[in-house]
Amino acid sequence: MYDEILTQLIIKNDTKALLLVADGIGGTTVGGRTELEAARTPNLDTLAKKSSLGLQYPVGYGITPGSGPGHLALFGYDPIKNQIGRGILEALGSGMVVKKGDLAVRGNFATLIDGKIADRRANRISSEESEKLVRQIRENATDIDGVRFDIKVARDYRFAVVFHDPELKDNIEDADPQHTGVPPRPAKARDKESERAAEIINRFIDKVTEILEGQMPANTCLVRGAANTPDIVPFEDRFGMKPQGIAVYPMYKGLARLVGMDTPPGLETYEQEIERLKETWADYDFHFLHFKYTDSAGEDGDFDRKVAMIEEFDSGLPEILKIEPDVLVITGDHSTPSSLKSHSWHPVPILINGRFAFQDDAGRFTEREAANHGILGHIPGMAIMMYILANCERLRKFGA
Amino acid sequence: MYDEILTQLIIKNDTKALLLVADGIGGTTVGGRTELEAARTPNLDTLAKKSSLGLQYPVGYGITPGSGPGHLALFGYDPIKNQIGRGILEALGSGMVVKKGDLAVRGNFATLIDGKIADRRANRISSEESEKLVRQIRENATDIDGVRFDIKVARDYRFAVVFHDPELKDNIEDADPQHTGVPPRPAKARDKESERAAEIINRFIDKVTEILEGQMPANTCLVRGAANTPDIVPFEDRFGMKPQGIAVYPMYKGLARLVGMDTPPGLETYEQEIERLKETWADYDFHFLHFKYTDSAGEDGDFDRKVAMIEEFDSGLPEILKIEPDVLVITGDHSTPSSLKSHSWHPVPILINGRFAFQDDAGRFTEREAANHGILGHIPGMAIMMYILANCERLRKFGA
Repeated sequence: MYDEILTQLIIKNDTKALLLVADGIGGTTVGGRTELEAARTPNLDTLAKKSSLGLQYPVGYGITPGSGPGHLALFGYDPIKNQIGRGILEALGSGMVVKKGDLAVRGNFATLIDGKIADRRANRISSEESEKLVRQIRENATDIDGVRFDIKVARDYRFAVVFHDPELKDNIEDADPQHTGVPPRPAKARDKESERAAEIINRFIDKVTEILEGQMPANTCLVRGAANTPDIVPFEDRFGMKPQGIAVYPMYKGLARLVGMDTPPGLETYEQEIERLKETWADYDFHFLHFKYTDSAGEDGDFDRKVAMIEEFDSGLPEILKIEPDVLVITGDHSTPSSLKSHSWHPVPILINGRFAFQDDAGRFTEREAANHGILGHIPGMAIMMYILANCERLRKFGA
Repeated sequence: MYDEILTQLIIKNDTKALLLVADGIGGTTVGGRTELEAARTPNLDTLAKKSSLGLQYPVGYGITPGSGPGHLALFGYDPIKNQIGRGILEALGSGMVVKKGDLAVRGNFATLIDGKIADRRANRISSEESEKLVRQIRENATDIDGVRFDIKVARDYRFAVVFHDPELKDNIEDADPQHTGVPPRPAKARDKESERAAEIINRFIDKVTEILEGQMPANTCLVRGAANTPDIVPFEDRFGMKPQGIAVYPMYKGLARLVGMDTPPGLETYEQEIERLKETWADYDFHFLHFKYTDSAGEDGDFDRKVAMIEEFDSGLPEILKIEPDVLVITGDHSTPSSLKSHSWHPVPILINGRFAFQDDAGRFTEREAANHGILGHIPGMAIMMYILANCERLRKFGA
């Protein structure tokens, strides 16, 4: 946002900001109220009364953001200009590290009988079974025609592969016939630049098929979503703040790493995330902390559990606020209404607290209060980083 | 804004609009209320009850506008696409006239001892002392290698120079070492086109050094911010309204002139501005009237004085309203919260009054009322001219 002038506006100082993301926290009304409205959130209520509220659109009006675009917007990147390919997302979600110049793909174990795809998901084998196959592949191949690769189970019969070779370009048709009863379909380059990558992917499939020969139900694989690592200006170069991303799940750690955040390993609970935040507060200028469970409950269509998860998120705030951030932002990467059982396009409440934040009339952190009384109005998700920088006094005046 | 279609939409008629700008009038809460909320503003309150309110962003989310970008936005120009260089702003602020093809620079008188810069600000000599030096320079040089120039004191040890030669281009590194104890640093062209300008600037510095030889503490000068006059479509060509800009301070008169407004000379008070407005109401289609003191009080960090200045601004309204404008807009060019002692990024309340303006529920001209009840919502500053034109019925229907 404002890319033509942003660099010239950035200044550095000692202020510190905290971005708290409760995944999918926004919702829509069910019987007249949302999960946020139904929840008992004394700590959010207190904060809301002394903060600026508004509603934010991570990507745009009516657009349902995936986790990738939702977080990129919160991190201050245009989610439409900076698209993250499926292969890269699968790799990040599997906890793999992707670097500039990598090509990542999503894979399915599949069943090949008499030269035809009999089952695109190899009878949906479990993660444990896939682990065994992946180990077998690793032991029998470390490179494809000289191209090193890493492979990791994503979930059940799904895995991710990252090829390390900057020559491999991602304009490729999927090596997946999408139907059963037909022969495997090789990857096909859509342009000359991507021919080498299509060839490597096809040789990879051949190699896997060779290694797994005779095993059932998984004796081959399908490959989709070839994608290069997006070329993203690191967060610290872009905003002048040294960032840490605190998350439990690999996907969110991966997204944080993609923009150059340090991501501590080994965290398994919200309490551990908060502990880490407190321990490392002094070491970074910008901390992102991710709370997952609001989204999971929404995805399950469980209104009451989402309410409970919002209350759990709320209960952590007193401990978090002990660090006394100069600027605090609370929001979600998208809405996940339990009535939809999925991510949605509904705007997400946002709260900005800090010394110079306007204390508006919003009395609670809810969609309705933000709409009725929020001083921020409706803003694009990527405006949030602008407000964080401004409230941190890290943006100089534009023009004299 | 809407540059692709604007020209085809403009129509002319006899309506007249008034844009009242109270500089830096917006704020943020201190102990729960802003300066506008604390002020007694009976006239603004009455107006607000029969007008449309909203909040406007002169440049963008989180961006703190300088006076230049803030006013350009209000005048209907994109402040990011139409940037005004530092030298031009200093010249405008010093009351100089800049024309297309001019190159303006900012200068400091400085102290040179044994070939090294000993003081970048010549012991911060006063405006009076600088006046004497500038007179001396004027008497001894009217051109540099055939290029005519004007020089004027800006304030204290600072001055502005305008070179009149369309061949001089502004892609130039400052002739300012930024440190003391080092030799002067000549201006350097960053491209071939700007080489002649760098040469003229360096010869100007040599000439000044020659003229001031033996004088202390000001015996040389540093030069920064070389800038050509921006290429701005004149207001009347763009919007079809003949404009006047009524201001006391040189900077605002200069900004008005930059977009082609007539600017009456010799005004020193708000009362005189209002008097001029009444006298010349019939002669123009569009009047801009600038009230400075709300900003000055905010810059000084004086909450109570800003409140008093808002009340003074309010007290002038009954007299102003006697002219019965068809369309009246009241806003600021940016916020200047006294808690920040500077311009800020906080959105500025805007009020639109006219026969076709929606009477919304906002009961006062405050940030909070605009956010809670304003029909206009949050708009970019450059949208204001669109609303002025629309409410003046000076925009034809777009498409059939």
